[in-house]
Parts: sequence; C-alpha cells; structure tokens
Amino acid sequence: MGSASDLPVMEEAFKLFEQLQVPFEVKITSAHRTPDITEEYISGLKDRGVKVIIAGAGGAAHLPGVVAAFTTLPVIGVPVKSSISIDGWDSILSILQMPPGIPVATVGLNAARNAAILAVQILALSDKELAERFSEFRRQMKDKVVKSNEKIQQLDYKFLVK
Amino acid sequence: MGSASDLPVMEEAFKLFEQLQVPFEVKITSAHRTPDITEEYISGLKDRGVKVIIAGAGGAAHLPGVVAAFTTLPVIGVPVKSSISIDGWDSILSILQMPPGIPVATVGLNAARNAAILAVQILALSDKELAERFSEFRRQMKDKVVKSNEKIQQLDYKFLVK
Amino acid sequence: MGSASDLPVMEEAFKLFEQLQVPFEVKITSAHRTPDITEEYISGLKDRGVKVIIAGAGGAAHLPGVVAAFTTLPVIGVPVKSSISIDGWDSILSILQMPPGIPVATVGLNAARNAAILAVQILALSDKELAERFSEFRRQMKDKVVKSNEKIQQLDYKFLVK
Amino acid sequence: MGSASDLPVMEEAFKLFEQLQVPFEVKITSAHRTPDITEEYISGLKDRGVKVIIAGAGGAAHLPGVVAAFTTLPVIGVPVKSSISIDGWDSILSILQMPPGIPVATVGLNAARNAAILAVQILALSDKELAERFSEFRRQMKDKVVKSNEKIQQLDYKFLVK
Amino acid sequence: MGSASDLPVMEEAFKLFEQLQVPFEVKITSAHRTPDITEEYISGLKDRGVKVIIAGAGGAAHLPGVVAAFTTLPVIGVPVKSSISIDGWDSILSILQMPPGIPVATVGLNAARNAAILAVQILALSDKELAERFSEFRRQMKDKVVKSNEKIQQLDYKFLVK
Amino acid sequence: MGSASDLPVMEEAFKLFEQLQVPFEVKITSAHRTPDITEEYISGLKDRGVKVIIAGAGGAAHLPGVVAAFTTLPVIGVPVKSSISIDGWDSILSILQMPPGIPVATVGLNAARNAAILAVQILALSDKELAERFSEFRRQMKDKVVKSNEKIQQLDYKFLVK
Amino acid sequence: MGSASDLPVMEEAFKLFEQLQVPFEVKITSAHRTPDITEEYISGLKDRGVKVIIAGAGGAAHLPGVVAAFTTLPVIGVPVKSSISIDGWDSILSILQMPPGIPVATVGLNAARNAAILAVQILALSDKELAERFSEFRRQMKDKVVKSNEKIQQLDYKFLVK
Amino acid sequence: MGSASDLPVMEEAFKLFEQLQVPFEVKITSAHRTPDITEEYISGLKDRGVKVIIAGAGGAAHLPGVVAAFTTLPVIGVPVKSSISIDGWDSILSILQMPPGIPVATVGLNAARNAAILAVQILALSDKELAERFSEFRRQMKDKVVKSNEKIQQLDYKFLVK
Repeated sequence: MGSASDLPVMEEAFKLFEQLQVPFEVKITSAHRTPDITEEYISGLKDRGVKVIIAGAGGAAHLPGVVAAFTTLPVIGVPVKSSISIDGWDSILSILQMPPGIPVATVGLNAARNAAILAVQILALSDKELAERFSEFRRQMKDKVVKSNEKIQQLDYKFLVK
Repeated sequence: MGSASDLPVMEEAFKLFEQLQVPFEVKITSAHRTPDITEEYISGLKDRGVKVIIAGAGGAAHLPGVVAAFTTLPVIGVPVKSSISIDGWDSILSILQMPPGIPVATVGLNAARNAAILAVQILALSDKELAERFSEFRRQMKDKVVKSNEKIQQLDYKFLVK
Repeated sequence: MGSASDLPVMEEAFKLFEQLQVPFEVKITSAHRTPDITEEYISGLKDRGVKVIIAGAGGAAHLPGVVAAFTTLPVIGVPVKSSISIDGWDSILSILQMPPGIPVATVGLNAARNAAILAVQILALSDKELAERFSEFRRQMKDKVVKSNEKIQQLDYKFLVK
Repeated sequence: MGSASDLPVMEEAFKLFEQLQVPFEVKITSAHRTPDITEEYISGLKDRGVKVIIAGAGGAAHLPGVVAAFTTLPVIGVPVKSSISIDGWDSILSILQMPPGIPVATVGLNAARNAAILAVQILALSDKELAERFSEFRRQMKDKVVKSNEKIQQLDYKFLVK
Repeated sequence: MGSASDLPVMEEAFKLFEQLQVPFEVKITSAHRTPDITEEYISGLKDRGVKVIIAGAGGAAHLPGVVAAFTTLPVIGVPVKSSISIDGWDSILSILQMPPGIPVATVGLNAARNAAILAVQILALSDKELAERFSEFRRQMKDKVVKSNEKIQQLDYKFLVK
Repeated sequence: MGSASDLPVMEEAFKLFEQLQVPFEVKITSAHRTPDITEEYISGLKDRGVKVIIAGAGGAAHLPGVVAAFTTLPVIGVPVKSSISIDGWDSILSILQMPPGIPVATVGLNAARNAAILAVQILALSDKELAERFSEFRRQMKDKVVKSNEKIQQLDYKFLVK
Repeated sequence: MGSASDLPVMEEAFKLFEQLQVPFEVKITSAHRTPDITEEYISGLKDRGVKVIIAGAGGAAHLPGVVAAFTTLPVIGVPVKSSISIDGWDSILSILQMPPGIPVATVGLNAARNAAILAVQILALSDKELAERFSEFRRQMKDKVVKSNEKIQQLDYKFLVK
Repeated sequence: MGSASDLPVMEEAFKLFEQLQVPFEVKITSAHRTPDITEEYISGLKDRGVKVIIAGAGGAAHLPGVVAAFTTLPVIGVPVKSSISIDGWDSILSILQMPPGIPVATVGLNAARNAAILAVQILALSDKELAERFSEFRRQMKDKVVKSNEKIQQLDYKFLVK
C-alpha cells in the first residue's frame, strides 16, 4: 500500500488471508515518494516465489499501475476512498483504466477483502488444499444468507405471508 | 459474452490468445435470457480443466458477476461500451462493484485485450513456457515505445532540441 | 432483498403494504451467494399466485435483473444506497440499464415505499377494493400538502403577504 | 410522448405491441407547453379502460411524473436521450427520482421496447392469452442467444477449442 | 415550494426579502400531489400583481418547470439538496434542462438567497427605491470582503509579508 | 459572448428577439483575454437603458459571473457546449454555482433561445405590448404540439387505437 | 483567496512556506464582490517582485482564472470543496478548464499544500538555497514512507511473512 | 508523452514554443511499458539545464505523476482524451489528484497549448526577452477578441442595435 493511512481498508485483506491460511507480506511503499524502493521491492518478488500482488491506493492512485509495470505477476488493485479522494472516483479510474498491455485486476471501492479472495482464487488454481478451504468458505457464505432469511421470517407484520 | 454484439470488442482477447498460443473457448450466453444455460456451462468448466474465465458485457452488465456466482475459478470482467450503455459508466459499475465475497477482476472499458493479458499472467504462474512467451511479449512492447520515440525525433521544428 | 443490511430501506415497503392491507412475502436471497435458492424461489412464485416482485439491492445490484430473468411476472427494482455503494450510482445503473427483453421497473434511490406503491397500482388493476383504498391514500397525501401550506402561512415575517 | 422528436425512440414500443397484439393509443402532449391537454387526456384514461401508461421524454423530463400525478394507473417512464439531453443523465434523473407517493416505473435510457415489455407483463397478469404469447416471446429470445452461440463457434482461430 | 421539508433552504430567501423590504407570498404546493392546486394558484398570480416566482424543489424537481408551464411570469428555480436527492444532481438537472420554450432561471444548489437576489434585480428594473436599496446591499457585500482581508493580515507567520 | 465560436449557439437568441421585436445589442468580449473591455462595456449598460444581459460561454465559463460582478442588472447565463468543454458539465457548473450575493440566472446547455425567452418574460413585466406578443407566442407553441399529435394519429399500426 | 471561509484549506500553504522559509503575502479578494480591488491588487504584483500567485476558491470558482487574466505571472489554482460546492466538481472544473491562452496550473481538491510545493518548485529554478531546502524536504518525505513501512512490519498476524 | 497517439494533442505545445522561440525536447516514454527509460531520462533533465517538464497522457494517466516522482523540477500535466479514455474524466482525475508532496500542475483536457503557455510564464520569470515576447503574445490575443467583436457587429438583424 502507498501510505499507512490505507491500513484500515487494506487490513481486511490480511484478515481474509489469516482465515484461509495464506502466507502474505505487507509493504508500504509509494509510487511517487519512494519510486526506487517500489521498483526494487516489486522486481524481486517473483524470484522469491511470490505469486500475486495486491496494491491499494487512493486519489490519483498510481501504485497498482506502477507495480504492474515492474513485474509480470498478476496485480490486483484496490481503489481506496482516502481523505483526498473525490468520493472514490479518482481512485477507481486511475487504477481501472490502465493502458493497453499492462492490466490491473481492479476490485470495488475499498474492497480489499474481495481483492484477497480473488488472490486466493488465483492461488487455488495450483493448490488443492487451499481450493478446498475456499470451497468451504463459499459454502459458509451461502449458509449465512440462508440464516439471514430464516431470521427475517420472524418479522411481525399482519399482512406478511410466511 | 452476453451477446454477439460484444464480439468486436471481445475478439481482441481471442487475437491475444492466438499470439501467445493459449487455448481458449468462446461462448455466447446471457445472464438474463439464458440463465440456466449460463449456470450449466459455467458449473462444468472447472472439471474440464478451464482455469480462468473472461466475461464481457455492457449496460447493466450482470454476466461477469453471475458467472462468478457459479464458480470458484477467477473471473475477469470486461465492461463493454455497448449501444445501450451510458458512455460505459453502467457497464463499469455493475461489474466492478461486486458485493463482499464474490469478486470480479475488472479491467478497463472495452479492454478485452488487457483481460486476456491478465489471464495469461495468471496461467503463466504454473506454465513456464507461457511465462517465457509473455516475458518476450513485454519486451516487444518496450521496443515499440523506443521505436516510437526514435521516429518522433524526426519532427521538423526549429526550436526542437534533439 | 439480497442481504439483511437492506432491511432498513426495504422495511418502508412492508409498512406501506400493512397500511393498504396487501399480503406480502419477504425473502433474503442473493444473486451471487445463493443463486440456486434465488432461482428456485423465484421460479415458483407465479404458480403460488404471486403477482408482483420487488427486489432491492446495492452496489453492483444484480438481484432485480437476475430475478427478472427467472420469471415473467413484473419485477420492481429498488436501488439501495448500501455501505459499499458509490453514492448510489452503481445501484441505480446496474438495475436501470437492463438489456433488451428483460426490463426491471426501477424506482428512485432507496425508494422502497414508492416501489410498494407502484406494486399496489399494478395489483389495483384487478382488485377494486384495493383501488379504492389507494384512491383514498392519494387523497390523504393531498390533504397533507394542504395542511403543510396552512401551517407555513403562520410564519412571522414583516413583508410576508398572507 | 412530449414531442414528435421522441418518435424514433418510442416507436420501438409500438412495434412490440404489434408483435404481441396489444391494443395501444399514441398521444403527443407536453407537460409544459400543453399542461391542460395533458391533464384532461390522462384523467380520462382510466374510465376508458386503459390499464398502463408509458410516457417518454428527454432533458428535464417532467412528462412521466406529471402524468403520474393525474392518474392512479401505473406509469412507465422512458428516459429519452434527446438532442437537448446531457448524455441522458438529465432524462434519467428527472424521471427516476420521483418524490414519495408518486412513483414512475423507470426503464433504461431509450428503452421504449423494454417499457412495452413491462407493460405486457402487467397486462398479462389478468390476460391469459397475452401471458401465453409473452411466454412464447421469451422462449424465442432464448433461442436467439442459443443460435448466436452456435454461429460464433464457427470462428476460425487456431487455439479456439470448440 | 413542494414540501415543508424545503423550508430550511427556502427560508434564506424570505430573510433576504425582509432585509430589502420586498413583499412576498409563501406557498407549499406539489407538482405531483396537488397538481390542480398548483395550477389554480399559479394561474392567478399575474392578475394579482405578482411579478416574479421562485420555486424550490429536490430530487426529480418538477415544480419549477410545472409552475413555468402555467404562467408567463419569469420563474426562478432553486435546486434543493433534499433527503431523497442524489447529492443534488437530480435537483439541478431536472430544473435546469427545461425544453425549448419554457425556461426556468436556475440558481445554484440550495441557493435560495441568490434566487431572492435575482428576483430583486428583476423587480428593481421598475422600482427605483428598491434599486437603491440593492445598490447599497452590494456595497455592503464589498465592505465585508475588505474587512475580511484586513482581519486576515493579522495572521501570525514569520514569512508572511504584510 | 466570450468568443466568435459561441455564435452558432447564441444566434438562436438573436432570432427569438427578431421574432418578438425586441431590440438587442451583440458584443464579443472575454472575461480573461479582454477583462478591461468587459468591465467598461458592462458598467455602462445600465445608464444606456439596457435592462437584461445574456452571457454565453463554455468550459471554465467565467463570463456570465464576471459580467454579474460589474452590474446590478439581472444576468442570464448560457452554458455553451464548446469544443473545449467536457460534455458541457464544466460550462454548466461554472455558471450555475455562483457564490452568495452574485447570482446568474442559468438556463439549459446551449439553450440561448430559452435565455432570450426568459429575457422577454422579464422585459414584458413593464412592456404590455411585448407581453401580448409573448402570450401569442406561447399560444402558437401550444398549437404546434396539438398539430404534432394530430399528425401522429396517422401512423399505420394494426393495434393502434385512434 | 476569495473568502475567509477558504482559510482552513489555504492555511496549509502558509505552513509549507514557513517550513521552507519562503516569504509570502495573503489577500482576501473576490472575483465577484470586489472585482476592482482584485484587478488593482493583481496588476501590481509583478512590479513588486512577486513571482508566483496561488488562488483558491470553491463553487463556480472564478478567482484563479480572473487573477490569471490580470497578470502574466504563473497562477496556481486550488479548487476548494467549500460549503456551496457540489462535492468539489464545480470548483475543479471552473478552475481547470480555462480557455485557450490563459492557463491556470490546477492542483488537486483542497490541495493548498501541494500548490505551495509547486510554487516552491518554480521559485527554486532561480534560487539555489531554496532548491537545496526543497531537495532535503523531498528526502524527508521518503524517510517517512520508509519508517511507516518499518512500523507496519510489527503487525501481529500468524501468516504474515516478514 | 506516453504514446505516439498523443502526438496530435501535444503538437499544439510544440507550435506555441516555435511561435515564442522556446527551445524544447520531445520524448515518448511510457510510465508502464518503459519505466526504467522514463526514470533515467527524467532524472537527467535538471543537470542538462531543463527547467520545466510537460507530460501528457490519457486514461489511467500515470506519466505526469511518475515523472514528478523522479525530479524536483515543476511538472505540467496534460490530460489527453485518448481513445481508451472515458470522455477524459480518467485522464483528468489521475493527473490532478496527486498525493500530498508531489504536485502536478494540471491544465484543461487536451490543453497542450495552455501547458506550453504556462511553461513560458514560468520560464519568463528569469528570461526578460521571453517575458517581452509573451506580453506581446497576450496583447495579440486581446486584439483578436476586439476584431471578432467588430466583425460580429456586421450581422444583419432588424432589431440589432449597433
């Protein structure tokens, strides 16, 4: 991530990785304030066996695109609705609209948890155990919706047909 | 893709796959007009060894999200600026802003070629030969920029310092 | 509705149905997390005598469109300004801009009460008593505006002509 | 509709009614230039047995809302991207965002055909033959998607798996 | 105004009229809930000697346009950022983008005070005393800026040149 | 107007003045390129008996606001969708959103003809003959809608009820 | 700046000038309420040795453009998200989209500190000592990012690889 | 500039430099496809005596920001409405909304000529002859407006007062 201020949003990704037991690194590095550190760090990831990169940033959010420029690994971008952002539109457009040749896999505004899920889906392609944990995770999501529905049936309205 | 009218946009992905020698399937199926065919087709992909899905749609573009609901494979979404779309904003927002738990890896408006490149980056994680072809592809992109720069130096301006 | 978090918005519809004595069902089911339950539930509604469906969702709000795909009943969509939504724009566009052939009758942002009124207007076409209750309801709305106007005449300004 | 210039868009609704054999009236009347004619015409529709009204307009598109104010029949609004419209945004917002109590069932930009389909879905609730013709219409839509898919399989790519 | 909820915004106009001693009427009437009262009230204004009308509304804000349809007097519209409004965009566009022939003089979002000033500028064309009071009002505005500037010079910065 | 390139839009106002026999002046002067000429010209208008000013501009359209700063006459602003404008949004917002104290009566995008009609409505407050010509003008607008409706009844559809 | 209400935003610029020891003046003057004072003040700046002007304003933010019209010095514009602004969009567009010939160097929304940095970069072109202080300032920014990164490594997650 | 496709827009800057006799370099280099060339080129500019940098790009336009990260020289950014851009919004926001510390002086959409004028204004601070040429350039702009006004007085309208 580009700044410590992105932590509350990005931490949702860390929690998802914990839940699904996926090892991960965390790095604060800025596309604009520490471009050389960013380059050095990103360039070395592939050789260390890293497979997917998640980059979150807000405003004129260049970090995900700059990261994608320094690696051939898939890069997932999280548009952050930071304090300088204009309701998130700048964050979204400056991550999503990458030029031909250097895509960033963009997820929804502040959706760091979905970014982590997408990373898991990619990693699970070559990791059977993770694939099984993820399938179980999806089943649990389904159960939660079913339980929500059961609970809402207890609403007390005269004309509610149950 | 959801409709034959998306073909001119999506065909850019086919060409990229040809160039990088990546086998691919093509399917027209609609989230709204053929929901059962969509479900059946998508549910079976993983067992047939498919690894990544690219879904393109325009307007209230539900196809990528509906596809993601029927599989645990990573899904890449291409917002198409179709004839019914409002300058592409509807296509982008209805693909990008997926709810918690079911992400779609969104690329730029009409960026089917970038979607294919992203798919290649994911596939290359477990395919060394593809990884090498992709690295070569990136080198060629770089060369093109260098050649563009050489060409532009030939502009004829009196105050242009070369 | 797609999630229990939509309840505070959607409950305005329940209250309107109570007021006009219209029997209604409530169901939480997700287009993405429980697609099969959604399909099964929606497909069975017509045979059980249900006449109109109201579907509310936020963000990339696919539920109303997915519901419309599984039935020939009229579907009314309520764009919800949920916590993941970008000021409601994503919710509106992903419900309103349905492709040719599968319309969703969209109402304003968070306008669940208006959705219920629209449902009443449709049901009243073949239910004379409901039609009368609804005409009375419209008269009362009118009276409220008249009373608002009477009250505002009591404002105390020197140059206010009454 | 509010102006003859809306005819090319609205005519798509007429064609759909022809196809599904639904009797319909056509009226040009303006919310602003002929408010009294609008009131008189709309007020009389219910007694003449009209069941659903479709109103199309562009720019500050007041016609659908003004029509809804003069009747208890369900009103479907078609935002028209007319020559004075700002890419359709004004048309959409001034139809969709109706105040509490007077909803307009809004369809997508220029989606007059979808408005007609929605009207058919409402009329079919109390007209079994129309309901059957509409079910057949939906089946044909499905067949067209299937045929589109068959045709696209004939694309000639070396790496296309069929 | 269309609803008592617009009062906090519109009251700024009343205060300006008090300050400049301009007689005014206040009326709550809705374009949609009391269309006939609106018509009757507006149609009678000219004969009673009213010269300018200010109409404020939010969301699909039809009131100013509907008012303009019933009179040849100049109508000033105030887009209100009401609770149902989408950040004011719907209010602005549905007042500003009137069709050819029926203009509404639109002021900024929630700018009821500016609407009143505009009304004063129109009335002052044929009222010399009001014109003088208004010129004095403009002078006072200027003085306030000058005093603001004097006050800010007292800021305490080491490098501030005074 | 700020530039000769605004002429095709603004000329619609000239034609309206011709039709309703309203004397008018035309001036090209820029808020940014000729600020002193603008000030001198505008400051002198009131004493020469001019009653209403129409200012049209595009992009960061400062002319109407700058004009309003130099006069107490009512100023009508026409947002022009010029070649540098971003679909007209910049033109609209930089005219409409004037600060407290200095309003501009804004009309729709490119709506110079409506600006002229608004000017006529203001002038007609103290010019009975113009008022009569304008009432006749409004009646003719109404007749055109009625004739449009008569013509459309001749459409040839089997299910069209006439 | 155009109003004392812009002070909390603009004060960030003053602090930056203090930090980098750059002499500066502060002036409140309005493009609309005190146009003559604005002109007189701006016209005299160059002869007094001022080199760069920063102008901040919100809503229909004309001040930066009007300032640019009265000088040949570079003008930096700060779009302020003031209380009358529509989420800052009006402020941005009415500063950024200046007509051909009179540019304003626009920075991000509320980014007065960045405006001051930009001014420093311009002044440093002919002031070696300032250039050195600025280089040091940039190094410190870099250090802060590095320290942020060190701190975040102390997060306590089981699967966090350090 | 980031791509040869930006040439038609950026060439307007070259022409302005020719007109005002300002030596300039031209470089095509991409933030994403040739990041190392970009870094090397930009880092060396200051030592070669370059004083101002203009960077143009479209879509997720990272080039100006990336350039600003590698230099302490002032950087002017030109948002280009390129073929992949969404009406220019992405280009504008990803250049304008730079994070704290690294500003980019942004000009209007496609406004390369204004970028060059801004560069001239900066250069003229320490180049008296350029300052004189620029003052003359501004005078000529003024004359063009005056001549435009003279020409428009020849319009032939019966009610046009000259």
